[in-house]
Amino acid sequence: MPRFFIAGTNIKGGMAVMKGRDAEHARVLRLRPGDDVILCDGEGTDYKCHIVLADKEEVQAEVLEVKPCTAEPSVKVTLLCGLPKGPERTEYIIQKGVEAGASEIRFFRSRYCVANPEAPEKKLERWQRIAEEAAKQSGRGIIPAVAWEGELADAFNVALSRDLGLFMYETGERESLASVLELNKNIRSAAIITGPEGGFAEFEADLARIVGLHVCSMGERILRCETAPIVALSALMYSTGNLA
Amino acid sequence: MPRFFIAGTNIKGGMAVMKGRDAEHARVLRLRPGDDVILCDGEGTDYKCHIVLADKEEVQAEVLEVKPCTAEPSVKVTLLCGLPKGPERTEYIIQKGVEAGASEIRFFRSRYCVANPEAPEKKLERWQRIAEEAAKQSGRGIIPAVAWEGELADAFNVALSRDLGLFMYETGERESLASVLELNKNIRSAAIITGPEGGFAEFEADLARIVGLHVCSMGERILRCETAPIVALSALMYSTGNLA
Repeated sequence: MPRFFIAGTNIKGGMAVMKGRDAEHARVLRLRPGDDVILCDGEGTDYKCHIVLADKEEVQAEVLEVKPCTAEPSVKVTLLCGLPKGPERTEYIIQKGVEAGASEIRFFRSRYCVANPEAPEKKLERWQRIAEEAAKQSGRGIIPAVAWEGELADAFNVALSRDLGLFMYETGERESLASVLELNKNIRSAAIITGPEGGFAEFEADLARIVGLHVCSMGERILRCETAPIVALSALMYSTGNLA
Repeated sequence: MPRFFIAGTNIKGGMAVMKGRDAEHARVLRLRPGDDVILCDGEGTDYKCHIVLADKEEVQAEVLEVKPCTAEPSVKVTLLCGLPKGPERTEYIIQKGVEAGASEIRFFRSRYCVANPEAPEKKLERWQRIAEEAAKQSGRGIIPAVAWEGELADAFNVALSRDLGLFMYETGERESLASVLELNKNIRSAAIITGPEGGFAEFEADLARIVGLHVCSMGERILRCETAPIVALSALMYSTGNLA
């Protein structure tokens, strides 16, 4: 059943009225009276609706069923990633991160960033569109927000405000991701920090340890900067019972 | 330290002698006498070597250390994937699958394959090269083999020969991946079957159940055909202690 997020939809008295962008979108999907659709409010609630009217200006649909979107994980995970070079890896992290269950995705600048993030804000609109597409396609109940975090220090602050803050690092003294996740099965929120292509500088890992993040290893295999966040997120979704 | 797989290297009396393709590769990497390299035999053993001679024809290196490659997971996982349409998703599965620890990757044709696998054998050379690149880059101890499996039934046979055979399915009656993995922490081998863009037909899932595979769900989120194998593999690597 076609599913989309309802930006400006007005739901009242058992009827959903879509105008503007939503009505356009419905037209693109060729929705006609008699069709059923799922409208998601982007805050975790799904409305199963039956279309009764569809024209250029608006679409009217009868609400058949209202239920919480069951696709939302029980833990809100923020991916914090060193900005990769070039759009492909960045967009890959956004698309796969949303599919795998991330609640938000933020990029930052760190010592070994080879990307040149002058005015990355300009890219936000495109990044957010990719997140919305992935959220629709994978049946998410929210549209994960994509943001530019600025410096690694800002990412540390975000991670410290979550129930669990992970800093994925490839060398030196580290905790095993498994041992950390085993002890954190009932968290409600988490942050996963991963580096850019060049990885993290030792001083950055030391800082992460000093501020109180878990500096974690995922074993001996070296994961690319666009792969590490997805693998770590999948492990976290699994360990918190969200791949069931 | 540069690391590569040694196809035709001859290791004898504490010396490694590389000719042909390996010597070429060493030249491409601009390796010179005095440089240290890690030569991996592709069967799980690493040779740390010190180059003493490097010319067009051959490279001679002194073996400093011989040790098992610690990057190899304790469980050999075969990814069996419905052939996606277009090269991008296929190559993505190969690259990320190798990084995430798959031991082999095979593609098959199923009811809803939109790809047109006429003579997919032709693509095998390129696919294998992608696997080798990813194996080098991620520090694997083997080069995972990429193969064309033919029909879904053939994939079933492969999966049934492993300690654990998983069939990932999006709807209907399914076991939770988590509950299955919880009961299979000490397996030595596993197979993960995932569908093409169009997913699996109900009869294909029924067949999987009848032949004795675990028909598994990864929750309510719909994963793309190139994402599902990586997420399932990451969960399996985590549950078997290979993300530590």
